[in-house]
Amino acid sequence: MGSAFGANVIHDAEYYILEAQNGKVWAVEDEKLDQKLVELRQKYDTPPNIIHYLWDDQPVMSFGDPIYQKIRGYETPQLNKLANEGMLFSRMYTEPGCTPSRSAVLTGQLAIRTGTWEIGFPIEYTGLAAENVTLAEVLSQAGYATGFYGKLHLGDTEESYPHNQGFDEAFWALYNQVTSLYNNMGEGANAIIGMKEELLAENPYQRDRTFIQDEAYVFYLEGKKGEQAKEWRDGSRELQDYKDFDIESRKRALAFIRGNAEAKKPFYVAWWPLWMSFISEPKKVTLQRGMVGEEYQRVIEPDIEALRTTLEELGIAENTLIVAMSDNGPMTHNPPPGAGLGEGLFTGGKGDFTEGGVRVAAAALWPSVIEPGQLAGDMIHEVDLFTTFARLAGARQYIPSDRVIDGIDQTALLLKGDTHGRRDYNFIYQGPDLAATVKDQYKIHWTSKDPSQAKSGLTAVYDLYNDHREVNPIVVGGFHMKEPFKRMRARHELWKEKYPDRHHKRAPAYTGIANARPETIAISQPPAALKELPYDVLEFIEKLDDLPYDATGDPGPGE
Amino acid sequence: MGSAFGANVIHDAEYYILEAQNGKVWAVEDEKLDQKLVELRQKYDTPPNIIHYLWDDQPVMSFGDPIYQKIRGYETPQLNKLANEGMLFSRMYTEPGCTPSRSAVLTGQLAIRTGTWEIGFPIEYTGLAAENVTLAEVLSQAGYATGFYGKLHLGDTEESYPHNQGFDEAFWALYNQVTSLYNNMGEGANAIIGMKEELLAENPYQRDRTFIQDEAYVFYLEGKKGEQAKEWRDGSRELQDYKDFDIESRKRALAFIRGNAEAKKPFYVAWWPLWMSFISEPKKVTLQRGMVGEEYQRVIEPDIEALRTTLEELGIAENTLIVAMSDNGPMTHNPPPGAGLGEGLFTGGKGDFTEGGVRVAAAALWPSVIEPGQLAGDMIHEVDLFTTFARLAGARQYIPSDRVIDGIDQTALLLKGDTHGRRDYNFIYQGPDLAATVKDQYKIHWTSKDPSQAKSGLTAVYDLYNDHREVNPIVVGGFHMKEPFKRMRARHELWKEKYPDRHHKRAPAYTGIANARPETIAISQPPAALKELPYDVLEFIEKLDDLPYDATGDPGPGE
Repeated sequence: MGSAFGANVIHDAEYYILEAQNGKVWAVEDEKLDQKLVELRQKYDTPPNIIHYLWDDQPVMSFGDPIYQKIRGYETPQLNKLANEGMLFSRMYTEPGCTPSRSAVLTGQLAIRTGTWEIGFPIEYTGLAAENVTLAEVLSQAGYATGFYGKLHLGDTEESYPHNQGFDEAFWALYNQVTSLYNNMGEGANAIIGMKEELLAENPYQRDRTFIQDEAYVFYLEGKKGEQAKEWRDGSRELQDYKDFDIESRKRALAFIRGNAEAKKPFYVAWWPLWMSFISEPKKVTLQRGMVGEEYQRVIEPDIEALRTTLEELGIAENTLIVAMSDNGPMTHNPPPGAGLGEGLFTGGKGDFTEGGVRVAAAALWPSVIEPGQLAGDMIHEVDLFTTFARLAGARQYIPSDRVIDGIDQTALLLKGDTHGRRDYNFIYQGPDLAATVKDQYKIHWTSKDPSQAKSGLTAVYDLYNDHREVNPIVVGGFHMKEPFKRMRARHELWKEKYPDRHHKRAPAYTGIANARPETIAISQPPAALKELPYDVLEFIEKLDDLPYDATGDPGPGE
Repeated sequence: MGSAFGANVIHDAEYYILEAQNGKVWAVEDEKLDQKLVELRQKYDTPPNIIHYLWDDQPVMSFGDPIYQKIRGYETPQLNKLANEGMLFSRMYTEPGCTPSRSAVLTGQLAIRTGTWEIGFPIEYTGLAAENVTLAEVLSQAGYATGFYGKLHLGDTEESYPHNQGFDEAFWALYNQVTSLYNNMGEGANAIIGMKEELLAENPYQRDRTFIQDEAYVFYLEGKKGEQAKEWRDGSRELQDYKDFDIESRKRALAFIRGNAEAKKPFYVAWWPLWMSFISEPKKVTLQRGMVGEEYQRVIEPDIEALRTTLEELGIAENTLIVAMSDNGPMTHNPPPGAGLGEGLFTGGKGDFTEGGVRVAAAALWPSVIEPGQLAGDMIHEVDLFTTFARLAGARQYIPSDRVIDGIDQTALLLKGDTHGRRDYNFIYQGPDLAATVKDQYKIHWTSKDPSQAKSGLTAVYDLYNDHREVNPIVVGGFHMKEPFKRMRARHELWKEKYPDRHHKRAPAYTGIANARPETIAISQPPAALKELPYDVLEFIEKLDDLPYDATGDPGPGE
């Protein structure tokens, strides 16, 4: 802990603009912060335990805001208590979708840099590449025990498995909530389309039986570092398995916490429940009766309560930092019926570059350190957790210095409170495209449905305080911001020439599973069930990366 | 106070459906509430003072919600304190525009019943008719002193003047915030269009000099019951007059309060600031820098602080009920530039029948009675204040019984708290049309841009908890609610055959002003400046009522 923090971390270009102006103040501040961290470590005889609890699709206000909850017809007393006793964030940014968000927080890099910007569905034949350095790897080097429990959604290749990415143990779902539908009930509810062949009319026009082969999908795996993975429940993927998965995650996460607490070993737990089953319980317990309200009660609230009770029982609550947050905005575009996933205060939701896509509910609790009852107006990004957790764990020297780390150290925000954040910018990518850039309270949209803006250089700026829904661009009034925004983008892109974006890595799926089923093995290389093809299968799956991405059409609400 | 409350009040048809099911419980509850009110009156030797503080265009969450304010970049510590020490409403409904809203709260009737559903601009030649019975008239009969200070926006005819509508004294603005623009600065800012002829090029094509005659407009009047009105500042209408007006309102409201407190006379004060000047101060004091954030600091916050300090000083704070609220949703359609009037959590704003138009920020403080720190999820409507205030003042017998009073007594909600409201419905008019109906958490849109819904009987129902933005109609899943909603509407409309809607009353404008200027007198009957016309001027202004209303086009966001 000798050298100034961040000396060996390559930041994004914009950070250096801030450092040039604030570096001296920050250096003085950092000395005191380091001293405080040393005192804490002496007091507790260990660096802090870190629990990152993350779930899907919840806009700012979803918890910690009683009036929002009254309007929406549900309550989360456990989460609200957590927020009240800690720091609630009003400006936590994430990537706009599950896969990029989860990748970003684990690597400290925007998903564009690791090629993980696409939301995955089975079978992907790709996943987080081994060359990436995850938070689990960084913290492991500093002596932390690391465990992953819940929805990972970072691919189906062997190298993407969390126990191959630095976690000591893992119990995880490979994909997202749609797996709650990939069973006979989903077909009965017309919630999936033509997946379950045994329930469909015999199709005399069908010529290809390899187009969808859901019986080969792998939903849930478990694994320990250095060992092969094992499929949970031997490949059963019924709705009940989906619902049991979060209960099992809770059990394992708490056991891991207990084991390490008793062994007096600091730990880092990524506990990311699958939560929202897309087939609801008929019996409702909230006024909302939407999946959101209901699944808070079924999964999140009991998780948080059990977590906090366990930490108290173990006597480690004071020295444990919990960050509870969502991974991206609500699924406002074509949500499952009755999900309750409407827009929050912002325009747009999952997949969008407007604030509704990337600004989420988040709070941090650290009883001995974070002043209770705080509301932070500072900008913070999920990638900052990577860098901040590394500092708190005394692991900053293990952050790789051969790539841009987007995460900024936000220790000062946690320890000193509101207005002590160190971020004033955000480059918002939508898939592979830089769609918007935020600077302080201003935001420029680089893409727009309005060609007068997008194509002719009249790109407009939005004032996020004054126009939080990004509907009334400041055109004339914001012209003085246009060239500064362009310079900011140019710096960001030039820096990439030195530190280029990487691709994700295509590979056979589902390898490294000890109890792999025959149908799983058969599908691991597509379309491997076919004996003879005039092309190479691996060459074929690598071509997937070259597909044009905007085949999906709608660039989001923009203007 | 002998007979059961409401025995002589004619409610809307739907209320009787509720009474038939809840009447017995409510009767028992009412006895206890009456007893409590008697005890309070004995304790304080007077019924409670009532202060209704109302301002424009603020969605739910605008105050009392720190995270909303952090996101929007402004703070209202005084209002938040008021909300924290009293009851914050999550479901206060109003009419969707200023004029109908102000009329509704003063008469206890939806604006459709009094013909006041149109937002007025100078010169209207109409206003609240004398036949209406206002809250000031009702409370005056029970011995209350009554004062009006601020923006009335209920017409420019003599009978609409507040001192002719039951207020002992009044100091008021006849129109809304646009009067902040009707001066040379407005023309300089291009914020008004071609109004100030002396600043425009000589127009050789102009043939009619009576089309706009702004020099005749009257913006600010004062008056005392039984006397003629007097124009404030002798007709000066500069921007500074606009800004001074709220300061003067504050001075007079507090003097009125002080005078009556010292005379030990209970009082009712309607204090409705003009607040949001559409020409801003160049120097900003909030991060938002929008008119909303800025004008909270300039007007509303100092008002609330001065009010509470004064009540404390006078020793009457405990026995004074303050209701602080907005009159309708934000002006989301074509707002003034930089207003900061974006949508809140709901779709739409001022003028819309979606929740964004009619659901507002509101709180009630009554230190000796309302339990502090409450958040009410009950439905309440501004018309309920009429009926509730009348009960609290011991004035229910003065509520007229020859018309439908839409207001429901909500004393139980104030005194017993969350879940004790008595309303579960709302008929939402947009101008003269019934546009939507709310029942409990469900809402039907009677008008829609989608003809498959609006014309063929597939009208859809929205679940306000699950889909608070009213974007995903429950069609098939809500069919069981369609016929009950139709019956509800039929009852509402049949009841109108017995108690028909009234028209507002056309009349000459600006009569009864002691110091009327010559140009004002000249314009009082349009187009009175012209010597000879082949038609009758009064007949002409009454024809205004027959104009088709939807000439304005857009029915709002609907679907």
